[in-house]
Amino acid sequence: MATVRLLTDAEAEAAPRVQAVFADIRAVRGSDFINNFWRGLANEPATLERTWSSLKEVMVAPSALDPLTKELIYIAVSVASGCSYCIHSHTAAARAKGLTDAQYGDLLAVIGMASETNRLVTALGIPVDPEFDVTG
Amino acid sequence: MATVRLLTDAEAEAAPRVQAVFADIRAVRGSDFINNFWRGLANEPATLERTWSSLKEVMVAPSALDPLTKELIYIAVSVASGCSYCIHSHTAAARAKGLTDAQYGDLLAVIGMASETNRLVTALGIPVDPEFDVTG
Amino acid sequence: MATVRLLTDAEAEAAPRVQAVFADIRAVRGSDFINNFWRGLANEPATLERTWSSLKEVMVAPSALDPLTKELIYIAVSVASGCSYCIHSHTAAARAKGLTDAQYGDLLAVIGMASETNRLVTALGIPVDPEFDVTG
Amino acid sequence: MATVRLLTDAEAEAAPRVQAVFADIRAVRGSDFINNFWRGLANEPATLERTWSSLKEVMVAPSALDPLTKELIYIAVSVASGCSYCIHSHTAAARAKGLTDAQYGDLLAVIGMASETNRLVTALGIPVDPEFDVTG
Amino acid sequence: MATVRLLTDAEAEAAPRVQAVFADIRAVRGSDFINNFWRGLANEPATLERTWSSLKEVMVAPSALDPLTKELIYIAVSVASGCSYCIHSHTAAARAKGLTDAQYGDLLAVIGMASETNRLVTALGIPVDPEFDVTG
Amino acid sequence: MATVRLLTDAEAEAAPRVQAVFADIRAVRGSDFINNFWRGLANEPATLERTWSSLKEVMVAPSALDPLTKELIYIAVSVASGCSYCIHSHTAAARAKGLTDAQYGDLLAVIGMASETNRLVTALGIPVDPEFDVTG
Repeated sequence: MATVRLLTDAEAEAAPRVQAVFADIRAVRGSDFINNFWRGLANEPATLERTWSSLKEVMVAPSALDPLTKELIYIAVSVASGCSYCIHSHTAAARAKGLTDAQYGDLLAVIGMASETNRLVTALGIPVDPEFDVTG
Repeated sequence: MATVRLLTDAEAEAAPRVQAVFADIRAVRGSDFINNFWRGLANEPATLERTWSSLKEVMVAPSALDPLTKELIYIAVSVASGCSYCIHSHTAAARAKGLTDAQYGDLLAVIGMASETNRLVTALGIPVDPEFDVTG
Repeated sequence: MATVRLLTDAEAEAAPRVQAVFADIRAVRGSDFINNFWRGLANEPATLERTWSSLKEVMVAPSALDPLTKELIYIAVSVASGCSYCIHSHTAAARAKGLTDAQYGDLLAVIGMASETNRLVTALGIPVDPEFDVTG
Repeated sequence: MATVRLLTDAEAEAAPRVQAVFADIRAVRGSDFINNFWRGLANEPATLERTWSSLKEVMVAPSALDPLTKELIYIAVSVASGCSYCIHSHTAAARAKGLTDAQYGDLLAVIGMASETNRLVTALGIPVDPEFDVTG
Repeated sequence: MATVRLLTDAEAEAAPRVQAVFADIRAVRGSDFINNFWRGLANEPATLERTWSSLKEVMVAPSALDPLTKELIYIAVSVASGCSYCIHSHTAAARAKGLTDAQYGDLLAVIGMASETNRLVTALGIPVDPEFDVTG
Repeated sequence: MATVRLLTDAEAEAAPRVQAVFADIRAVRGSDFINNFWRGLANEPATLERTWSSLKEVMVAPSALDPLTKELIYIAVSVASGCSYCIHSHTAAARAKGLTDAQYGDLLAVIGMASETNRLVTALGIPVDPEFDVTG
């Protein structure tokens, strides 16, 4: 159950700002499919525009990390945030970008390991070693 | 302020199970440096042994993801968990494994972006698109 | 799927402490509707009484912040905690107290923005500026 | 301890993209003070530009919620995310925008109350009442 | 919707490493029932083996805390992590180990109370009292 | 750095509602020591009174769980919430109530284990087994 209506294509067409973003999503992705996140966010055109613009800049534009690595980081954050939708959408995106079963197994193992040591460190109140200062 | 004492080398030498783990950490890392996490965890030899053994299996052994990518995932989880110590130790580890400034910038951008969309999705209660079902 | 049974009106009537709280909820809200949270919490009469009493004091009694602003804060915390039920119940409550579409859009934008900068700050380990000390 | 250097004014002046953002922050805020977050983020000019631009749009531009209410929401998210820096910077900002002691007391009470009921609901696995569906 | 297939008994029988873990789970628990977590994790035999081995060591082997107390701690962490599956599986496990309604009520009350004071402390930025230093 | 002043004994004596709570804390605990949390919360007398009253009811009054077990649950939640102050204060409280080194080791192991499996379950999107329905 969403807190807002998910805009249909017909409704998006009637809202120029939404329609422009939807058209750009389709062009950038080379697919007609608009997933529910954008259909919900479309209720807030300003946030829709800003979020899609940022996402294109961060996730789509060529950068120092390859697209699959960026999806793995996205999944890791989504798991720690407990966002089921985000986990599913970015796991599907990672699969589409070539994620293998073995890589997915590694991703899960690292997420689990980090989660465990994060809590052990926090419980113990471990002070940061001066050796970790990388600011020189 | 830690909730336990951080074991000195002298104390570790007096505890055979701890000493064995510390020796293995030094051998695997090719360095004499033992960071505070292990010195604190050394108060619990069973957890020390299990955690180091898992960490070697997950983070050190050759696997489908390269060592730097695994560090980036570790950092992402640590940021979302709010573990300052873990962020510092794994950012230093990533730097030692060749993380460039440009890659670090990307890592930050993806973590920030994911955190933002995670919360928007959660606030809106977006239902998972059936298209994301990858289980066939 | 709940971990406890949700008490029906008939069951509540058979439990005097529960019945007293349910009657007060109905009187305070001017509505016969008792939402599932209270029906589940009713399995623990002491916690039911304490929670309802606190909620009345914090959310219902006149105070320095107006009722709608308090609902927005409640939603923000619920989103960050990932409590779907709480998001839905308090978004509905905010709507009932006059939340407009434009205000809801702002709420989402601020939650998203804060979530992003929270993680960037945490990843970077930014030290607090002395200028932020407001304790004089 | 930060994971990056905090840029001094002299360093910012030597980096045109950073300098432009710092100048805009000073103009918008009518103050010479640049807090540490921006000095750290300045290591990543693209993220610095995007984040400041979004922050201006969300927090500074006139919108349906007044500036103080937006700060309260920002603080609430920051507390739930456990970002100490963010809590201090936005509590100071809220004070500067007129937050009274009584309002601050209310903010704390609502954050505490929401945190408690969030966890109770989650522990009990309470299903969402159909009455909370506001999508009509 | 899971991101992986949940292995059936027939599929597990065809995978020797999975079959060995499933057989051990059944032997240790004295029950034929294999819950979905293990059926999903079975897609990653190495993580399946390591996780079950750790779980046996931590939760099943005799130790200083009794089995029910360990389940209560497990539930508390799961609630704070927002893992609905974990809450249900460990609440059922606790019930099977003798958790009474009154003890469950106490567990809920402590989880709620801790969640509230955690956030109040974080919002206020309370410094740790030197009296809490237990490392002597 | 706190966001509020921590009230001294002299300031508390000048505020009757605060003084009454401080006197009750001292009487209940049989100690003159008032820790910083209460000194900070004292800026909000209504929240101070409500929080202390709830804490007495939940943590001090005789109930189905023994005092040490309740402290362990409190620590577990505080670790998952990342509240360093709460971890230190309740670890000290648990020590004062007889927590042994071996029990503390168990507590850490369970917290770590739960944190790891919480995230694995969340990443995998495991559906709840119908067998875990305890509501009959």
